[in-house]
Amino acid sequence: MPTASEDAALIAVTVDAIDPLDAAAGAAAEARQGVLTKPPGSLGRLEDLATRIAAITGQERPRLDERLIVVAAGDHGVVAQGVSPYPQAVTAQMVANFLRGGAAINVLARHARARVRVVDAGVATPLPPEVADDPELLRVGAGAGTADITQGPAMPRDAAERAVAAGIRLLDDERRVEGVDIVGCGEMGIGNTTSAASLIAAVTGRAAGEVTGRGTGADDETYARKVRAVEQAIEVNAPDPLDGIGLLAALGGHEIGVLAGVYLAAASMRVPAVMDGVISGAAALVAAAVEPRAAEYVIAAHRSAEPGHGAVLERLRLHPLLDLGMRLGEGSGAALGISLCVAACRLLDEMATFGEAGVDESDAAVPPEA
Amino acid sequence: MPTASEDAALIAVTVDAIDPLDAAAGAAAEARQGVLTKPPGSLGRLEDLATRIAAITGQERPRLDERLIVVAAGDHGVVAQGVSPYPQAVTAQMVANFLRGGAAINVLARHARARVRVVDAGVATPLPPEVADDPELLRVGAGAGTADITQGPAMPRDAAERAVAAGIRLLDDERRVEGVDIVGCGEMGIGNTTSAASLIAAVTGRAAGEVTGRGTGADDETYARKVRAVEQAIEVNAPDPLDGIGLLAALGGHEIGVLAGVYLAAASMRVPAVMDGVISGAAALVAAAVEPRAAEYVIAAHRSAEPGHGAVLERLRLHPLLDLGMRLGEGSGAALGISLCVAACRLLDEMATFGEAGVDESDAAVPPEA
Repeated sequence: MPTASEDAALIAVTVDAIDPLDAAAGAAAEARQGVLTKPPGSLGRLEDLATRIAAITGQERPRLDERLIVVAAGDHGVVAQGVSPYPQAVTAQMVANFLRGGAAINVLARHARARVRVVDAGVATPLPPEVADDPELLRVGAGAGTADITQGPAMPRDAAERAVAAGIRLLDDERRVEGVDIVGCGEMGIGNTTSAASLIAAVTGRAAGEVTGRGTGADDETYARKVRAVEQAIEVNAPDPLDGIGLLAALGGHEIGVLAGVYLAAASMRVPAVMDGVISGAAALVAAAVEPRAAEYVIAAHRSAEPGHGAVLERLRLHPLLDLGMRLGEGSGAALGISLCVAACRLLDEMATFGEAGVDESDAAVPPEA
Repeated sequence: MPTASEDAALIAVTVDAIDPLDAAAGAAAEARQGVLTKPPGSLGRLEDLATRIAAITGQERPRLDERLIVVAAGDHGVVAQGVSPYPQAVTAQMVANFLRGGAAINVLARHARARVRVVDAGVATPLPPEVADDPELLRVGAGAGTADITQGPAMPRDAAERAVAAGIRLLDDERRVEGVDIVGCGEMGIGNTTSAASLIAAVTGRAAGEVTGRGTGADDETYARKVRAVEQAIEVNAPDPLDGIGLLAALGGHEIGVLAGVYLAAASMRVPAVMDGVISGAAALVAAAVEPRAAEYVIAAHRSAEPGHGAVLERLRLHPLLDLGMRLGEGSGAALGISLCVAACRLLDEMATFGEAGVDESDAAVPPEA
């Protein structure tokens, strides 16, 4: 296992490698949009999306052939506060479901022709042997997950660095071995909407009640406990909103740290990172706290039904592509978002130009003298 | 060519074959949603969408393997009023582009793994020989398109019936030869947003200025001429909003008639019909005027940037899946909508149940005594 100083160094090197968007590639893509066989602007946000991906990747006509969805699973000590209607064992059960291909994200990833990488980022319940030994499962040494954040920090600072560094290494390995042209950030973890709401409240300064949702379906009493847990977690830990690693150590979780590492690595590699729901959004906030420029490489797939998600979108100035009332997590919205990114880039790359197709442009596009 | 009485008889038979939605299949799909490995309702509108498609198809777990997009192209005599910045020749040029695979709809159909069927529904400009002779192009005998609707009817009543019947025969042939599990309704035709706005104003009673948009990019003067053309078309023709064939004969166009036939045929076959933008929407209004129940089989892919589209959605009580500011037509939004329908149905069909996956349900789902 890498040492704490290696983890910190890897994060620092990754952050240093994050450059500004490539404005020239974006401008070239925009110019090409203007000569494709369609009225200017008629593909609406698909045009902006492809232009943005051109600026992210540095390619005038980006191709998104290799698509990856990371699903990081982790458990949360805060479940001791009764914040979820599901038993903690569900995290481990869902990891098994992910590996067998039966979860929503597996179906949506097949639909988007993306591969899924499942990460054990601190699953508390022992995994069945065939799951624990599955070579497809990446384990990042996060033990049984976080401590109860209403009582103290989620994890030591070096564990937070280890989680972020694990996300960076994951994306680096995936890129070297199979290639990654676009990555979606998904997660699973009973109790992790409480961690996410705490992070969002800590970063944005909003009240716990404003950014805390019902997650997987909390009733009124559970919801009240959840809001109180978020308030307590912030009171007890008093995290510094400008210290990304500190936020993560204070409020968790390990899966959020892994995703924060994926966002940072993606930005350093000029790979678009597709944000999913509220937990994936909290991870993007952590990444942006570590390095604000990382947010420029993030694409918001959808507007989650969870209230904290709107606060993330506003903070990162992101406009979601879809608004379907989804609140599952797992990267489910990200998979649909990846499919739209692919469609937008294929339009930019594959459509004929007016010249190629022998189609007249509009009078409006031709100078009056012509 | 079929006779006028054969066309009328085919429309009548098709309308008679439209049954109510299958509530039992819808209920079975909804029940299955409740036992899939996710919190109830967490897939948001994707769950409602799959349930609706189950009720449309009559299948608890519908499979949408055979996907068709119809692109009907037709010209409009109203271009004489200067309502478009593009020359009429563009309709023919785009038909050639569709057949060569270089248009936006070709790219988006490949993305959605749908096949595209191109229809010459009255293209005025002679097609190049290799296009005219292409066996992939279906010609429906609509001559050079419609007459100028500001001066009188778009076409005789028997021509309107011929267009609708052609759409019915098209879908029937496609179903028999290759199969159709879902169909998208797209179009192309310089001037056809004027025809669509006239139909929408006539059916909904809204003012011309409210439902007329800038189409492919009209400037202020062109837009003013367009609004006046819509007003004149309604004044001159005074169509009966309850007579679908009469509306079509009065205001055109042939491509709208073909799509109206596709909607009616789809409803009669229990095939979901995915509506695209404002012209595709006007065709759905015509179909619903012929038989109101046809609207139950329509799925709105997106909210177009064209103002008349909102009036169609409201009239047909449809809630669009996407809102990406698109206003291209061709079935471009429908292709993205089909992809979401496929995703929704695959989730319903392929996800593991709690029992299959050995995942605990939430406490909320278990009676307190258990």
